[in-house]
Amino acid sequence: MTKAVITFGEAMLRLSPPAFHRLEQARSFEVKVGGAELNTAVALVRLGRRAYWVSRVTDNPLGRLLACHVREAGVGTDYILWTNEDRIGLYFLEFGAAPRASSVLYDRKGSALAAIRPGMVPWKAIFAEACWFHVTGITPALSLSAAEATEEALAAAAAAGVPISIDLNYRAKLWSTEEAYRWMHKFVQQAQVLITTEEDANKVLRIEGTDYAAVARRLAETYPNLQVVAITLRENPSVWRNSWTAIAYAGGKIYQTRTYEVEIVDRLGAGDAFAAGLIHGLLDQDVQKGLDWGVAISAIKHSIPGDFAWVTASEVESLLCSPQLRISR
Amino acid sequence: MTKAVITFGEAMLRLSPPAFHRLEQARSFEVKVGGAELNTAVALVRLGRRAYWVSRVTDNPLGRLLACHVREAGVGTDYILWTNEDRIGLYFLEFGAAPRASSVLYDRKGSALAAIRPGMVPWKAIFAEACWFHVTGITPALSLSAAEATEEALAAAAAAGVPISIDLNYRAKLWSTEEAYRWMHKFVQQAQVLITTEEDANKVLRIEGTDYAAVARRLAETYPNLQVVAITLRENPSVWRNSWTAIAYAGGKIYQTRTYEVEIVDRLGAGDAFAAGLIHGLLDQDVQKGLDWGVAISAIKHSIPGDFAWVTASEVESLLCSPQLRISR
Amino acid sequence: MTKAVITFGEAMLRLSPPAFHRLEQARSFEVKVGGAELNTAVALVRLGRRAYWVSRVTDNPLGRLLACHVREAGVGTDYILWTNEDRIGLYFLEFGAAPRASSVLYDRKGSALAAIRPGMVPWKAIFAEACWFHVTGITPALSLSAAEATEEALAAAAAAGVPISIDLNYRAKLWSTEEAYRWMHKFVQQAQVLITTEEDANKVLRIEGTDYAAVARRLAETYPNLQVVAITLRENPSVWRNSWTAIAYAGGKIYQTRTYEVEIVDRLGAGDAFAAGLIHGLLDQDVQKGLDWGVAISAIKHSIPGDFAWVTASEVESLLCSPQLRISR
Amino acid sequence: MTKAVITFGEAMLRLSPPAFHRLEQARSFEVKVGGAELNTAVALVRLGRRAYWVSRVTDNPLGRLLACHVREAGVGTDYILWTNEDRIGLYFLEFGAAPRASSVLYDRKGSALAAIRPGMVPWKAIFAEACWFHVTGITPALSLSAAEATEEALAAAAAAGVPISIDLNYRAKLWSTEEAYRWMHKFVQQAQVLITTEEDANKVLRIEGTDYAAVARRLAETYPNLQVVAITLRENPSVWRNSWTAIAYAGGKIYQTRTYEVEIVDRLGAGDAFAAGLIHGLLDQDVQKGLDWGVAISAIKHSIPGDFAWVTASEVESLLCSPQLRISR
Amino acid sequence: MTKAVITFGEAMLRLSPPAFHRLEQARSFEVKVGGAELNTAVALVRLGRRAYWVSRVTDNPLGRLLACHVREAGVGTDYILWTNEDRIGLYFLEFGAAPRASSVLYDRKGSALAAIRPGMVPWKAIFAEACWFHVTGITPALSLSAAEATEEALAAAAAAGVPISIDLNYRAKLWSTEEAYRWMHKFVQQAQVLITTEEDANKVLRIEGTDYAAVARRLAETYPNLQVVAITLRENPSVWRNSWTAIAYAGGKIYQTRTYEVEIVDRLGAGDAFAAGLIHGLLDQDVQKGLDWGVAISAIKHSIPGDFAWVTASEVESLLCSPQLRISR
Amino acid sequence: MTKAVITFGEAMLRLSPPAFHRLEQARSFEVKVGGAELNTAVALVRLGRRAYWVSRVTDNPLGRLLACHVREAGVGTDYILWTNEDRIGLYFLEFGAAPRASSVLYDRKGSALAAIRPGMVPWKAIFAEACWFHVTGITPALSLSAAEATEEALAAAAAAGVPISIDLNYRAKLWSTEEAYRWMHKFVQQAQVLITTEEDANKVLRIEGTDYAAVARRLAETYPNLQVVAITLRENPSVWRNSWTAIAYAGGKIYQTRTYEVEIVDRLGAGDAFAAGLIHGLLDQDVQKGLDWGVAISAIKHSIPGDFAWVTASEVESLLCSPQLRISR
Repeated sequence: MTKAVITFGEAMLRLSPPAFHRLEQARSFEVKVGGAELNTAVALVRLGRRAYWVSRVTDNPLGRLLACHVREAGVGTDYILWTNEDRIGLYFLEFGAAPRASSVLYDRKGSALAAIRPGMVPWKAIFAEACWFHVTGITPALSLSAAEATEEALAAAAAAGVPISIDLNYRAKLWSTEEAYRWMHKFVQQAQVLITTEEDANKVLRIEGTDYAAVARRLAETYPNLQVVAITLRENPSVWRNSWTAIAYAGGKIYQTRTYEVEIVDRLGAGDAFAAGLIHGLLDQDVQKGLDWGVAISAIKHSIPGDFAWVTASEVESLLCSPQLRISR
Repeated sequence: MTKAVITFGEAMLRLSPPAFHRLEQARSFEVKVGGAELNTAVALVRLGRRAYWVSRVTDNPLGRLLACHVREAGVGTDYILWTNEDRIGLYFLEFGAAPRASSVLYDRKGSALAAIRPGMVPWKAIFAEACWFHVTGITPALSLSAAEATEEALAAAAAAGVPISIDLNYRAKLWSTEEAYRWMHKFVQQAQVLITTEEDANKVLRIEGTDYAAVARRLAETYPNLQVVAITLRENPSVWRNSWTAIAYAGGKIYQTRTYEVEIVDRLGAGDAFAAGLIHGLLDQDVQKGLDWGVAISAIKHSIPGDFAWVTASEVESLLCSPQLRISR
Repeated sequence: MTKAVITFGEAMLRLSPPAFHRLEQARSFEVKVGGAELNTAVALVRLGRRAYWVSRVTDNPLGRLLACHVREAGVGTDYILWTNEDRIGLYFLEFGAAPRASSVLYDRKGSALAAIRPGMVPWKAIFAEACWFHVTGITPALSLSAAEATEEALAAAAAAGVPISIDLNYRAKLWSTEEAYRWMHKFVQQAQVLITTEEDANKVLRIEGTDYAAVARRLAETYPNLQVVAITLRENPSVWRNSWTAIAYAGGKIYQTRTYEVEIVDRLGAGDAFAAGLIHGLLDQDVQKGLDWGVAISAIKHSIPGDFAWVTASEVESLLCSPQLRISR
Repeated sequence: MTKAVITFGEAMLRLSPPAFHRLEQARSFEVKVGGAELNTAVALVRLGRRAYWVSRVTDNPLGRLLACHVREAGVGTDYILWTNEDRIGLYFLEFGAAPRASSVLYDRKGSALAAIRPGMVPWKAIFAEACWFHVTGITPALSLSAAEATEEALAAAAAAGVPISIDLNYRAKLWSTEEAYRWMHKFVQQAQVLITTEEDANKVLRIEGTDYAAVARRLAETYPNLQVVAITLRENPSVWRNSWTAIAYAGGKIYQTRTYEVEIVDRLGAGDAFAAGLIHGLLDQDVQKGLDWGVAISAIKHSIPGDFAWVTASEVESLLCSPQLRISR
Repeated sequence: MTKAVITFGEAMLRLSPPAFHRLEQARSFEVKVGGAELNTAVALVRLGRRAYWVSRVTDNPLGRLLACHVREAGVGTDYILWTNEDRIGLYFLEFGAAPRASSVLYDRKGSALAAIRPGMVPWKAIFAEACWFHVTGITPALSLSAAEATEEALAAAAAAGVPISIDLNYRAKLWSTEEAYRWMHKFVQQAQVLITTEEDANKVLRIEGTDYAAVARRLAETYPNLQVVAITLRENPSVWRNSWTAIAYAGGKIYQTRTYEVEIVDRLGAGDAFAAGLIHGLLDQDVQKGLDWGVAISAIKHSIPGDFAWVTASEVESLLCSPQLRISR
Repeated sequence: MTKAVITFGEAMLRLSPPAFHRLEQARSFEVKVGGAELNTAVALVRLGRRAYWVSRVTDNPLGRLLACHVREAGVGTDYILWTNEDRIGLYFLEFGAAPRASSVLYDRKGSALAAIRPGMVPWKAIFAEACWFHVTGITPALSLSAAEATEEALAAAAAAGVPISIDLNYRAKLWSTEEAYRWMHKFVQQAQVLITTEEDANKVLRIEGTDYAAVARRLAETYPNLQVVAITLRENPSVWRNSWTAIAYAGGKIYQTRTYEVEIVDRLGAGDAFAAGLIHGLLDQDVQKGLDWGVAISAIKHSIPGDFAWVTASEVESLLCSPQLRISR
C-alpha cells in the first residue's frame, strides 16, 4: 500500500444558520465538520492520495457523528484516540454579505484534543508508513499539553525522515502572538514547507516586508531548513467575490500561478485545500504543480458548502487546462 | 403591577435532528431553548402570570439567541446576569420510537450558570416584588457554587416571605444521590411545595413507599413545612403514547384529577409545565385547581415541539371542561 | 368528450406550520390549496372522471398559485371567473396530538367568491355539458350574494336535468344554524343526493335521531326528492387514529360498508373525498359501489398530506379487494 | 427607567417563498414579521434604546405570533391594543435577481390597525414616559380613521413636548398622492425630523429639485419646524448589489457620510433601520452621529434576512471605525 | 378555440441538491421538471398562447409526477402517450460558482420517449388544430427511432402547413456531430425558423463564421426555406452574472435588441424561453417583437428556479418598457 | 487484523418525499442509500465487526455519493469495482399510514451490478481474509450474469471454507418464482445459514407448512448443509405499529426470543439488520445470541430513518437487559 499523509489536529462540528441568518435568528443549524488539518487530509484524498487524521475524540454520539464525516470523506480514522472524557468542540458560522463579513464563534474549550498530552499517540508506528506530515498553528494553540504533543509529533516525524509542512494559521482567540512565536518559531525550524499569509508571517514569526516575494525570501533565509515557502494572497473587494492566488519560493526562485476570481459560497477551508494541492505537487517533487494545484483546488473550494473540498482531480485538471464558466452538460 | 413568579436556573440551546434521525446521522439541527425553571416560567406566563427567569448568561450571539427565546415567550429577562465569561450550555435531543426511547446528551460543562456564586444576584430586590419562587434540583446540581447560590436564593425568598416550590428533578449525570441528598434535604425544608416523581423521592430524599399516596404522605411528614406535595405519574406503554396524571397531598388529603392518554410529539418540559399549572392554582389558593391545571397543561405540552408550553389558558379550560379530539374549526 | 362533474365553491391557500408546531411558533408554513368542492372535484378526477371547479378568483400571484394547484390536480379551470378585485382566502392549519385536536383558523373574509353575485356565472352553458353538480353548505354560508348565487346554480342545474349532490358541511364560524336552515332547507329540496354527519343533520336541518339509520330515513322522508342520503361516521379514540365508515340510505334500504382503522396524517378533505367516491358510484348507478369507494378513498385520504386525495382508482380497488399493510415492493 | 421611543404603525406577517422562487411556485413560505415603525423600534432596541410599538392587533394565533416576534426583538408590547375583531395583515415577498426586481404583494385590507380610531390609544400616558415619537406615512394611509388616529397621536406628542420624526414612506397602493399630500403636509408641520427619498418628497410634498441638497433645503424652508431633514440615496446597478448612503440637512448645513457597497440579502427594512440610527444620534444631539449610524446600520441591514436589523451597537461601531470584509474569527 | 403550438420532446425529473452543494454531498434533492420543448411550451402558455406537449411517458408515480408539473404550468397533456414500459428520465443538476461552472448529469437512458417509433403519435389529428410546431435537436438525438419519429412529425407538420421552428440544441452526450449533421441537416430544410448558438451552428450544421451576423446570413443562404434565423449570445464573465441577448436575421435584415445583465439564479431553460418569445412574436408576424420578447422573457428566466419561465406577459412588457431594479411595491 | 464479513449485492440511492407525501406530490426527496447486503454489512460494523461490501458501481457523482454513504457507515469499499459504464440504481420510497401501506418504486434497470459477470471480482483474494460471506436472493435476481456471478462467489467462498449465509429476499418485480427456485435452490445447498420469511420459503423454495417451526424444520431437512435456519415474523396491526420477532432452528432445536412492539419510523432494512445480528452471534458460535441480537437490533432499526441500523452494540445490550421507554438522560 502506498504511504500516507499524516495530519494532526482538532476537528469540530460546524453549525451554521441557513441563508445568511444571524446566529441570533437561528431556528436551525446546518451541520458540517471542519478542522484545518482534517480539511487538508480530505483534499489530499480527493486528489488521489491516502491520508490519515490523527486526533483525540470523545466517544459519544457527537464524536461518532464527527468520525462519520471523516470516513465519508475517505480519510483514515484508525489513528483517532477515542476517549470517554472531555467534549467535541463546536464552531458556529454566520455567512455575511458586504459590508458584513462572515464570522465564526468558537465553542471548543475543554475539547478532547486540547487535553492531549505527549505519549498518547504512537507516532513511531504511524510515521513508519507515512510519506508526509502536516500540522498547523492551531493544534499547539489549543493548550500547553497540545503544544507539547505537537512538539513530540514533529520530532517523531523528523526522526522518521518524514517531510513536514506547517501552516501558520494564527488564531488570536487561542493564543497571543508571543505564545505563538515561542512555539511556532521552534516548530518552523523543523519543517521543510511553510504555508502562511503575509499577515501571519508578521504576527507569528515577526517577519516584516513590503512585498510577498520579499517576505517569502526572508522566511526562507530565517529558517534555512525550509525548502518551500508558500504565501496565499486574497483580495476582498466584497464578501461574495474575492481574488485568490498564491506564490511559492523555492530554491531561490519565486513561482507564480493564475489568479482566480472566485464567487464565494463558503470560504472556510480554502487555505487548507491550498495546502493539500501544494503537498500533492511536492510529493511529485514539482513546486510549480503544487502551486498550480493548490491555488486551483482552493479556488474551487470557495464554491462548495462546508470545510471540505468536494472536488475531483480531473476537475482540478480541467480548470488548469481550460477554465469554462458555461454550464457543463 | 402584579407581583411576579421568580424562577432560577439554567437554560440551554437545544439541538435536535429532524424526523427521528439519530445524532450520528444529523445533517441539521432544529434549535429550541429549554431549561426546567425557564420552562415553568414560560408556562406561567401562558396562563396569565408574570414571571422572571433569573440566570447567568454569556453575552455572545448564542447567549443572545437564548434570550431571544426567553423574551419571545414573554418571560422577564431583566434579572439575567450577563457576562463575557464562560459559555452557553447545549443539549442534544434524539427523538425515539419503541423500543428506542428518546434520549438527551448534555454539553453544559463550563456554562455561565455553573459559575454563579453567592452574592451575584440581588435577591432582596428581586423578591421584593415577587409572589412565588420556584427552583428545581438541577440548579444546585450544576456546581458547588451554584448549590451555594441556590441556598442563598432560598434563604432570601424565605426572608421575604415568598412561598417556595421545589421540583426534585434528579439528574444522575450531574451529581450522585448522596450529593443530591445533602443539598436537597436542606432545601426542601424551606419549601412550601414539593413536586417529584415517586422514583426521585426515593433516590434523592430516601423516601420509600409502595404507593403514591403513601410516598406523598411520608414526604409531608418528613418535611412538615410542606403544605403541598405533588407526584406526577407517567405510564409508558410506548414511546409515542403515554398515560399522564398526578396526585397532590395537602392538608392530610389526597387530591386526584383526570388521567390523559397523550400522543407524544415532544415530552420535554411536560413536568415543568405541570409545576406551572400547580403554582397557578396555588396562587389562587386552590390545590384542586393547581392539580387539574397542572396535569391538563402538561398533557397538552406533550403535543407541542420544544420545551415550552405554547398553550393558552382558554385551551386549558376547554380541555378541562369538554375534551374534544375532533378538528376544531 | 364525456360529460363532466361541476363543483362550485371557494378554495383557499392553506398554510400550516411543520411537524406539529403551533401557529405561534411558526417560522415557516407549508403551502397547500383546499376547498370542500374543489377537493371533491380533485378526487373525482383521480378516479377517472372529468371535473370542473367553478369559482371566482383574484388575478394576482396568490390566485394564480391557487389555480396552479387546481390544474396540477387535473381539474378544469376554464370556468373560473378571474377578477382584479377582492382577495384570496387563507386558512391556517395546526396539526394536533391527543389531547390537543388539530385546529383551523380561517382568514377568508373579503374573498373573491364571497363577492360573487347571481348572473356572473354562465350556468346554462356550463351545465349543457355536465353530468353532475356538487356543492356544499360552505358556499352559501360565505355571504348573502353567494347564497343567492348558489340558489341560481341549483336552479340552473335542475333546469338542465343535472343531478345534484349537497354536502351539508356546517361551519359555525360562517353562519348561524338559523341562517343555515333557511337556505339549506330550500337547497336540499332540489338535490338528489345528501351527504352529512348525524350532527350536521341535526344542527342544520333539525333532524333528530338516536341512530344513523333513523336519521338517514328521516332525512329521506323530509326531502322526498332525495334518492340517496349518506352519513359519514367517525370515531376519535385519539387524534392520530380514528375509525372511519359511512352508511347510505336509498330506496328504503340501508347500505353499509367496511370500517377502516385509519392512521391520520391529515384528515382535511376526507369528507370531500367520500363525496367523490359516492358520486363516482352513483354515476354508475351503483349505490353500494358509491358507498364502498367513498369510504375507501376517504380512508386513504387520511394518510395523505394536503386536502387532495392523491390516490389512484387502482389503489382504491386494491384496498377494496385485499387490504394489505405490508410494504408494497 | 430611561424614557422610551414610541413608534406607531402596523406590522404584518411577512411570507416569502425560499430561494428566489416566484409566489406562483411557492410550496412553502418563510415567516417573518415586519412593519415600518416596528422595524425602526427594533433597530433602536438593538442600539441600546428602549422602544415601544403602539398598534392594534387581533388576538388570535396569528396576532400572538406577530407579538412573539416583537417581544423576541426586545420591543415593548405593553401598548398594543388587543381586539377580537378584524385580522392580521399579511405581505408576500418575492426575492428577485436582475432584471427582475424583488416584489411585494400586500394583503392587509381589513387589518386591526386600519380600524383604529381616535380615542382608542391612551397617548397622554404613553408620552409621559417618552423621549421620542416616530411614525411613517404608511400609518395614515391605512384608512381615514387611521389618519385621524395619527393626527391625534402627533398632537399628543407635541403637547407632551416629545420630539417627532416622520418618514414619508409613500405607498401608492394605499393612497393617492393627493390624499397623501393632504395629510402628510399637515403632519410634517408638526415634526422636528423628516426622513424621505427625493422621489417621495416630490410625490407627497410636491418638492421638486435637481439635487439632493437642494431638495433637503427646500423641505427645511417649507417646513420651518423641521430641525433635521434626511434623504436616503440608493443606486441600483443590480438587484443583488446597491450603493447606499444618505445626507442630512440641519441648521443650514449639509451632512454627509460614507457610501456603502452592499451585497443584498434582504433590503426590506433598510430605510427603517436608517431612521433608527438617525434617531439614535439625534437623541444624543449629534446629527453627524445620527447620519453615520443610520447609514451604517441600514447598510448592514441589507445583509440580514427579515425586516429587522439584527445588528449590535458594537458591530455598527466596528463598521464605522474599520470596515473589514475578511472572515471574522 | 384558438389553434395551439405543438412541441415534441422528452421531459425529465430534475433533481438538484440545495444551496450549491455538490451531488456527492447531497442529502436531499429539490424536484423540478424540465425538457427543452416542454419548457418552450410552458413559456408560450405564460405569454397567453395555448400549447401542447407531445411525448411518451411511463405511467407510474414518477410519470404522473412529471405530468402534474406539465398540467400545473398550463400545458396540454392530452397528447401524451402513456405506457407501462420503460422509465422516466432524470437529470441531476449542480449549481456552481466561479470558477466552478454549473453542471448537469443525465440519467435518461431507456426513457419512454427514446423508445418512441414512427406511427405511435396521431400527428395528423394533432396538427389539424395547430398553429406552430417546435422541436429541438435533443429529440432526434435520443435514439434512432426517436429520430425517425421526429422525421415523421416534421413531415406531418409540413403536410398540414404548420410552421416549424427548430432549436439545434446540440448535446454531445447524446450523439456525435456526424450523427447530428446527418439528421439535423435534413430537418432544418423543412423548418421556417432556426434557433441556435454560433457554436452549435458550427458543430451541427458546419457553418463557420467570424461574426454572428455572418453566421446567421450563411445559415439563411444554406437553408433557403428558413424565414428567420435567431442566434442567442451569452457572455459569462462569471457564473452568477452573464450578459444575454440575441440577434435575428430575416428578409435579408439583421434585427437586434437590448442586452441584459442577468443575475443568475438558474439558467436552465433560458434558451427555451427565448424560443417561446420568438415564436410568440412570429405568430404575430413580427420579427422584432419576437426578438424583443424572446430575449426579455429569457433574461427574466435566469432569475427563476427551475426550467420553467414563471413570468407573465405583463412582466415582459414592463421590462421592455421601463426596466426597474427597485423593489416593486 | 481480524477477518472480515464479505457481502455482495447492489445498493441504490433511495429517494423519498418528506412527511408521508406521495411521490406525485414530491417537491423534494430525502437521499439515503440502501441495499440488502450493504445494510447487513453496515449493521455488522455497528456491532463491532469488520465488513466489506463487494459490488460494481458507476464512477460518476451519483456512484461516488453512494460510496460516501458506504464509507460513512464504516463498511470497506476496497472491493468495489468502479466502472464508467452503466448507471446507479435508484429506488423511490413512499411512507404510508393505515390503510395505505408504504411502497417502493424501483428504477434499477441497467445498473452497474446487473452487468456484472463471472471473472470480474477477485473472489479468491477477497475470501482469503474473510470470516463470513453473506448474500441475498436479490443479487442473482438482477440479471443472468449477476446470477452467474453469485454462483461464482458462492463457489469461491465454499472453496475457501468461508461460512455462507443467504437471505431469500424474494422480489417479484425482479424475477418469477420459477427463476428464483432454479437459482436459489442451488445456492441454498451451499449455505450454512438460511434467513427467510415463511412466505418466501414457500414461494422460492416451495416449502409449505402450517407453522413456523415446521417450515424451519422442513427447510433444514431439505437442505442438510444448513446449520441454522432463521425465520422472521412480523405482524402488521397497522402501518405505524408492528410486532416483530424471529425464530431459529439449529441442531434439531427451535430457539425463540422476545417479541417487540415496534413504533415504525422506517422499516426498510430491518430484515437486513436481523441478518447482521444473527451472523454476529453465529461468529461467536452462539445461536441464541444470534437470534436475540438479530431481533433486538432489527427492532431498533424500525425507529431509525434510512436503511442503515445506526445503533451501537451497547444499545442492543441495554435493550436485551432492561428495555426502557422513558427518556434517557
